[in-house]
Amino acid sequence: MPCAAAATLRDRMSLTVVGSIAYDAVKAPAGERERMLGGAATHFALAASFFDEVRVIGPVGDDFDEQSWQVLGTRGTITDDVERVAGGKTFFWRGEYHAGLNSRQTHETELNVFETFEPKLSPAAAECDVLFLANIQPDLQRAVREQCSAARFVAMDSMDLWINIARDSLVQTIRGVDCLLLNDEELETLAEKPNFVSAAREILTWGPSAVVAKQGKYGAALFTKDGYFALPAYPLEHVVDPTGAGDTFAGGFVGSIAAHPGESVDHDALVRAMVYGTALASFNVEAFGTERMTDLTAGEIAGRVGELQRMTTFEHAAIALRG
Amino acid sequence: MPCAAAATLRDRMSLTVVGSIAYDAVKAPAGERERMLGGAATHFALAASFFDEVRVIGPVGDDFDEQSWQVLGTRGTITDDVERVAGGKTFFWRGEYHAGLNSRQTHETELNVFETFEPKLSPAAAECDVLFLANIQPDLQRAVREQCSAARFVAMDSMDLWINIARDSLVQTIRGVDCLLLNDEELETLAEKPNFVSAAREILTWGPSAVVAKQGKYGAALFTKDGYFALPAYPLEHVVDPTGAGDTFAGGFVGSIAAHPGESVDHDALVRAMVYGTALASFNVEAFGTERMTDLTAGEIAGRVGELQRMTTFEHAAIALRG
Repeated sequence: MPCAAAATLRDRMSLTVVGSIAYDAVKAPAGERERMLGGAATHFALAASFFDEVRVIGPVGDDFDEQSWQVLGTRGTITDDVERVAGGKTFFWRGEYHAGLNSRQTHETELNVFETFEPKLSPAAAECDVLFLANIQPDLQRAVREQCSAARFVAMDSMDLWINIARDSLVQTIRGVDCLLLNDEELETLAEKPNFVSAAREILTWGPSAVVAKQGKYGAALFTKDGYFALPAYPLEHVVDPTGAGDTFAGGFVGSIAAHPGESVDHDALVRAMVYGTALASFNVEAFGTERMTDLTAGEIAGRVGELQRMTTFEHAAIALRG
Repeated sequence: MPCAAAATLRDRMSLTVVGSIAYDAVKAPAGERERMLGGAATHFALAASFFDEVRVIGPVGDDFDEQSWQVLGTRGTITDDVERVAGGKTFFWRGEYHAGLNSRQTHETELNVFETFEPKLSPAAAECDVLFLANIQPDLQRAVREQCSAARFVAMDSMDLWINIARDSLVQTIRGVDCLLLNDEELETLAEKPNFVSAAREILTWGPSAVVAKQGKYGAALFTKDGYFALPAYPLEHVVDPTGAGDTFAGGFVGSIAAHPGESVDHDALVRAMVYGTALASFNVEAFGTERMTDLTAGEIAGRVGELQRMTTFEHAAIALRG
């Protein structure tokens, strides 16, 4: 009975993300928001929820309001594992983007309940098929990863802070995952290599079968043991708020893997993941915070994937060369 | 007689480039060279000569040696129009690249014969089918462009210096060409726009039918009235010397247009140009100065074009999305 088998597989399928849930205050050339829902796990879940049922692990405080619960639960994301810390306040970040959005300045970071966060996974969260470890302290990432021992695919993000103050732990965590997603400059720092190509290839020797170099407005590059794939970003004339673009990319990327349960995660599957990550990230930056992602439609995503293909694919046009 | 017609067309076909011919002293993490042939016209010609007979316009001094003439003449490039300034010295540049090759420092610039350069075109040079105006003073670019009134396709480069001190003249020159190639940050400065997408689209309204945003290690993006195409750079673990990469890109780009005489330069032709520009530039940076480009083979170029296609092309893989 193939249908019953497929149904069982579907039942077992799930995507767990662990990371921050936050309130962000953002000032940018296009405007400002004083308090909007943000955080890596939030942005990830809003993208990944197009592909699979997502389970979010992260802490919030007493101030986490009803509207935020609703946004976090968009497209059926399960928030049962979100830890409500009584007497605590939700992680808060205040930052500013300058013209061109190439640089951002952090004005305030209140870790609040995130400071003492120790992820606790329910059995359902630990039995996930696919796991994403958003940017948190690498010891915690490793502890979560070890609880999800049956996961078919585990991906992780990190940041320069952990490369600088907890490199050994970070490297140990990377050894235990299938895929590392990191900004290209962070890859260079981490691998102590002069460019992201040699850095990514070095990190592939540590254990992961895939490394993604995120390049912001330029796109992203994928390194696997079988090859290389690069995809430029979708060309936007008006970027409103880049906050969460990387986590949204991860949500599309990891989500597209989760959407194919039982499939081996080979180079082609990761190429498809790059395409969906790129498409989802391009929507996120069109508005502040989660504003664009809550009402985004499946049709819009499919349309943008088609556009990305037309904008990057070419026929091999051989020219008879001289010399 | 289609064959005779084609032969006549072939006879009329030619590619003229005007720009600097120089000696460069370069220090980079991979080594250093004290005096090697360089200059925009040189790098352009070495790439473009794979596609068409190239005619170089530019000044040299008494110090321009026999070996340099030979390298400049690689693959039949015609050097008859190179101006030998008696008693003058060839343009000299000394620069240094730091780890990662993301920044370069100019230690010395001796304009020498380039300071008083006024391009003089022979009738053969002026009758070109395709013209490339490398980075020189925009008034001079315009004077050359006006002499090549029958050219099917005219492309140009520039630099931040002219944007800052001769913007009006530069804009007037841009109005008279088919294609502008510029670094993405220079496009933003020139068009006074916060990102290269809006900058390139603004410049398309000035007159050119194509704008190319060069993005260094990230690749390049093409904007035309019919659409958008972006191509990541070829992933190199070891970049030796980025000097001339942009001019080599232009040589492959413009050369591939010149290789198709009589063809209308539409979006697809410019996409093909992007591919060859990217492939040629990737070889140039593998060695110092002109060292890689003189012994490069047609087979190597074809191989890299194929690799670029495999690294960037994907099938549209539709996923049934939730929500």
